Amino acid sequence: MQQTLEVDLGERSYPIHIGPDLLEQSDLLSKHLRSSQVMVVTNVNVGPLYLDTVTRKLREFKLETLVLPDGEQTKNLETVEIIFDALMQHRFSRNSTLVALGGGVIGDIVGFAAACFQRGIHFIQIPTTLLAQVDSSVGGKTGVNHPRGKNMIGAFYQPDCVIIDTSVLRTLENRELSAGLAEVVKYGLIRDPEFFEWLEANIELLIQRNHDALAFAIKRSCANKARVVSEDERESGLRAILNLGHTFGHAIETGIGYGRYLHGEAVAIGICQAAHLSHRLGWLTRDDVDRIIDLLQRAKLPVNPPLEMTAERFLEIMSVDKKNVDGKIRLILLRGIGKAALPCTVDRVQLETTLNEYGRN
Amino acid sequence: MQQTLEVDLGERSYPIHIGPDLLEQSDLLSKHLRSSQVMVVTNVNVGPLYLDTVTRKLREFKLETLVLPDGEQTKNLETVEIIFDALMQHRFSRNSTLVALGGGVIGDIVGFAAACFQRGIHFIQIPTTLLAQVDSSVGGKTGVNHPRGKNMIGAFYQPDCVIIDTSVLRTLENRELSAGLAEVVKYGLIRDPEFFEWLEANIELLIQRNHDALAFAIKRSCANKARVVSEDERESGLRAILNLGHTFGHAIETGIGYGRYLHGEAVAIGICQAAHLSHRLGWLTRDDVDRIIDLLQRAKLPVNPPLEMTAERFLEIMSVDKKNVDGKIRLILLRGIGKAALPCTVDRVQLETTLNEYGRN
Repeated sequence: MQQTLEVDLGERSYPIHIGPDLLEQSDLLSKHLRSSQVMVVTNVNVGPLYLDTVTRKLREFKLETLVLPDGEQTKNLETVEIIFDALMQHRFSRNSTLVALGGGVIGDIVGFAAACFQRGIHFIQIPTTLLAQVDSSVGGKTGVNHPRGKNMIGAFYQPDCVIIDTSVLRTLENRELSAGLAEVVKYGLIRDPEFFEWLEANIELLIQRNHDALAFAIKRSCANKARVVSEDERESGLRAILNLGHTFGHAIETGIGYGRYLHGEAVAIGICQAAHLSHRLGWLTRDDVDRIIDLLQRAKLPVNPPLEMTAERFLEIMSVDKKNVDGKIRLILLRGIGKAALPCTVDRVQLETTLNEYGRN
Repeated sequence: MQQTLEVDLGERSYPIHIGPDLLEQSDLLSKHLRSSQVMVVTNVNVGPLYLDTVTRKLREFKLETLVLPDGEQTKNLETVEIIFDALMQHRFSRNSTLVALGGGVIGDIVGFAAACFQRGIHFIQIPTTLLAQVDSSVGGKTGVNHPRGKNMIGAFYQPDCVIIDTSVLRTLENRELSAGLAEVVKYGLIRDPEFFEWLEANIELLIQRNHDALAFAIKRSCANKARVVSEDERESGLRAILNLGHTFGHAIETGIGYGRYLHGEAVAIGICQAAHLSHRLGWLTRDDVDRIIDLLQRAKLPVNPPLEMTAERFLEIMSVDKKNVDGKIRLILLRGIGKAALPCTVDRVQLETTLNEYGRN
């Protein structure tokens, strides 16, 4: 059955619809469209699977489609320009809509294009990976990478609505499913200990794609994120806790080159590093660190940093993270399972020790 | 003497400081800086004149400077990327400030870069042309051109403050001064008939750069724009009247190629075309049309469209304007001097007649 979650952001509030076979529903997308001009943007992997299903429901609109290449390495300004060119070529007006059909990369690129085209047009997200469903579809962060740093160029821009069709996870690769679970586990860790325990009991069901388990995990994850974002839309405080594991993870993605690790895989490793450092600081028990690593491994995720990422390389890249203040590295760490601390500057020696020791033998 | 005008936009409100020799004041800029990292961006014309004066006051900050090429043809995404590259190279954090020192082009480009870098950093405007002082420094419209259309890519982004030093107009070229007066005249036309009459009486003083006259005209123009923007920040209604003459003017700039006409010159021609069309519709007397053309000519502005801009070329380009709805051209016209009408769809034949007849003999 379909459920709806409301993201409460004042006049920028929007609904998230979650349920099986939503793309097959003839009017769910069209009833949210507030313009006659609509462009659906997808990629070469998702397009063949779902583009036809989506566009078949939009016959009464002035419809265009755009199929982009796939992968984090396409998340750059050049790809955004391809969208601008298509919008200009088809004479899209300020009153038009971009629909992002795909994973987090498509959502981030298309959302940023929607934010900038004519200073902002309508935007609807149809996330097709677990990671995009539980993470990038909530919160309005859009953007692209700079060669020197991930997500360095972007905008806060909220969609008109998000449509999460849980049935599309049937076609998701195993590796992509696990990558999404890294972010799911993160929500338990930062603010929902009960959910973390549920995950410990049910992680195998999720890996086996049990439909009810996935629907529950997606809704609980979105609800957690929506609550955090509602309280701090532009990340002036609380919202930063959503970045648990991300500063380490981004460094891995930047250092190894976008593409070899999926975002969720890099985050899984980063969560373990953050847990290890939290333990070094006396904030987290050894037992809790082991529970975290164990759960991520059961989710078929990597938990050790790649050998070529030396401590020096980590520090070099982490020093340009967006959360830093006046050049000092700031991290989200854990004070327990279900209890993230706000970003804090960490003793350099402690950080280096974790970078040198954790996962290195 | 220095005056301050407050642009009222709730939590995004900011002050505009207007007066002579403001750049020489040692603490006006620094007291508005909310970060230690500051990058001043200017161009090859303005830099040699004022960059040293501005940076001399910022010795206690982590300061970088960037000098861009000049001209509307540089107002594109490539130039924005030059700014991103410099910010990344110098490891600018989310808590840093971009200062735009220059005309409207510099303000638009740098403002857009500030809006997008790490999803938004601090931004201060120091406009050095009359046009930028009375127009682009108020209202938060930032952005760049697309090869197929002007200002098609951008963001609404408000500065922390605007510093208008009227003394810098001493070094402005005559042609640039006149271009600024086109926008000044516009404010009289759209909502301030008393100001229009003042301009009719004092236009020669402005051309002669009488300091008090310029200071009055700048403040009155900014106050008019600030009032309109306060009521409609994101141009859902009233704000569109600021575009009087701009749909025609943008078509000239796009059609002839950015650079041959200054923006204000193209707007002056566009205002005359809009006045002519308003008269055709019976909204404006012949006498008022003549008053408008006469005032713009006394301001040393062109008033006739270039020959190579045929009616067909105008229509082709105007059909992709941001104000259009569902492909229909919408224009701001006048119902009298000091009285702009909200955007309206105009009878195609009437529009074509104005495009074919006005200024063609």
